[in-house]
Amino acid sequence: MRIDGLQYANWSEKIFRQMREGGVDAVHVTIAYHETFRETVLNFERWNRWFEQYPDLIMKGLWASDVDHARATDRTAIFFGFQNPSPIEDDIGLVEILRTLGARFMQLTYNNQSLLATGCYEDYDAGLTRMGRQVIREMNRVGLVVDMSHSGDRSTIESADHSERPIAITHANPHDWMPALRNKRDDVIRAVTQNGGMLGFSLYPHHLKDKSACTLDSFCEMIAHTAEKFGAEHLGIGSDLCQDQPDSVVEWMRVGRWTKEIDYGEGSAIAPGFPPQPDWFRDNRDFGNIENGLRAVGMNDTEIAGIMGGNWYRFFSENFGPQS
Amino acid sequence: MRIDGLQYANWSEKIFRQMREGGVDAVHVTIAYHETFRETVLNFERWNRWFEQYPDLIMKGLWASDVDHARATDRTAIFFGFQNPSPIEDDIGLVEILRTLGARFMQLTYNNQSLLATGCYEDYDAGLTRMGRQVIREMNRVGLVVDMSHSGDRSTIESADHSERPIAITHANPHDWMPALRNKRDDVIRAVTQNGGMLGFSLYPHHLKDKSACTLDSFCEMIAHTAEKFGAEHLGIGSDLCQDQPDSVVEWMRVGRWTKEIDYGEGSAIAPGFPPQPDWFRDNRDFGNIENGLRAVGMNDTEIAGIMGGNWYRFFSENFGPQS
Repeated sequence: MRIDGLQYANWSEKIFRQMREGGVDAVHVTIAYHETFRETVLNFERWNRWFEQYPDLIMKGLWASDVDHARATDRTAIFFGFQNPSPIEDDIGLVEILRTLGARFMQLTYNNQSLLATGCYEDYDAGLTRMGRQVIREMNRVGLVVDMSHSGDRSTIESADHSERPIAITHANPHDWMPALRNKRDDVIRAVTQNGGMLGFSLYPHHLKDKSACTLDSFCEMIAHTAEKFGAEHLGIGSDLCQDQPDSVVEWMRVGRWTKEIDYGEGSAIAPGFPPQPDWFRDNRDFGNIENGLRAVGMNDTEIAGIMGGNWYRFFSENFGPQS
Repeated sequence: MRIDGLQYANWSEKIFRQMREGGVDAVHVTIAYHETFRETVLNFERWNRWFEQYPDLIMKGLWASDVDHARATDRTAIFFGFQNPSPIEDDIGLVEILRTLGARFMQLTYNNQSLLATGCYEDYDAGLTRMGRQVIREMNRVGLVVDMSHSGDRSTIESADHSERPIAITHANPHDWMPALRNKRDDVIRAVTQNGGMLGFSLYPHHLKDKSACTLDSFCEMIAHTAEKFGAEHLGIGSDLCQDQPDSVVEWMRVGRWTKEIDYGEGSAIAPGFPPQPDWFRDNRDFGNIENGLRAVGMNDTEIAGIMGGNWYRFFSENFGPQS
């Protein structure tokens, strides 16, 4: 079973076919960065069209059992998430509405301060806001997973502790392997995993040691090391693949409507676009390389099966239903 | 089994308890008259709060099986509908979105011309519009029932014929019994029922012979007569109960934002509010009176069970799922 904990591609039949070629049974896809509620609904509508148009390749994913159904029918189950809480605007009632429409993950911040928490690019992280605490409780109640991939350390640790259900960092790597602003320090990973949460390893070059030149061996050694520290059962892949996106979309992700100036995120003025993927992970067809790489660094079959999909599957099965 | 095909009350714990007292297993409730998409979502949100607040009295209804579940747990299943297509605005993609949120009925018009069809108060009914034909196909596809209670005759007949699935007139009576503008002529009822559709009998006094003074016997004789003409299996109740609503809501229903002048609908300047209910049907507690009345006019147990709920149940089970 192969499950990818995060992608944001410029979706097309080509990519849907590559997912089948790579044996990707399920993927959590981002459908909002800075979108309002109504704009997010337009993105749900676009996916509804794709489900209607490509019924042999993809299906809507709502529950862990949909991963089984997708596998049995040779398709990829698409699970929805937001990288920012902008879709709920200032209305806590939209948490349940969006979860009913199919949302299964929501980041509390995307780099910047939000109404809920502090993003990882702010100078000072003041932790969860009043609304943030209320929204986490509501997300817990309905079964919408808190994702802190783009949040500050304090906000992430407070969320892991405040949440009554496990939370996730769907796409990031350990900071001590590659000290990128978006990668996570040990105490952050510990706060998330010790409460049953998940860390998905990113393949976005800015998150990789030596970036695009990162070796498969280095990536897999890092995973094995993280497994020793925090337990292999809390780990998965969250590739952060942003395939075929034009630069205008990269700009939307980084800038939205919050500034009139250009913000380069993890890029820079001289390299504003997406860096090239490492040659051993070009796109969805290359998940097998990671599986082989994990074997080569000495991980066992159970650990590998968990990291490639089994752990996300268990996490989906425990966290997408209403709170019991 | 008792199912009411339409209500629009000023909902409260009192009314939820009256529904239990009257043995109402399910009710189709109106949650939009002139609301935009976002305003309609606020109404879904309000119901989500009520479901959270009164879990022992009500539950969200999505499928016919929810009626069984409500009966088994002594609750009322609430099914949602709109009396106007305003919630989809000009966006056919919102049909599936709203159906996913729980909508199960949508009128194509509310008295006036809409983007889809002509309302029953317009001078001339030009029939289905270009968008109207597309939206019916989409409603058919996803499982959202076309309701023509407030539409013109031609629009209704064209809808019954264009729709690939049965449609409904959830709340109206035969025009030859009570010649109200909203009551339906035989050729309209025939177009709907001969395609498997349903007619729900209204208890709104303006739709009753002698209005508030209508007798139970006259109402039940009318039902028996309609059953002989069109078949008892196509008939149900759609009480149109608008309990405890303040006059401001009556005004919203009639006027929305489409005019600056007052429109009295079926009322008049000297009687602008809701007329009193007949004494044998004050509210949800009185469904038993109708059942007794149908027996008194000689209908048999099978026919009565169908009209009181069994026919709506069958209609729900056949029309709320995606098109096969």
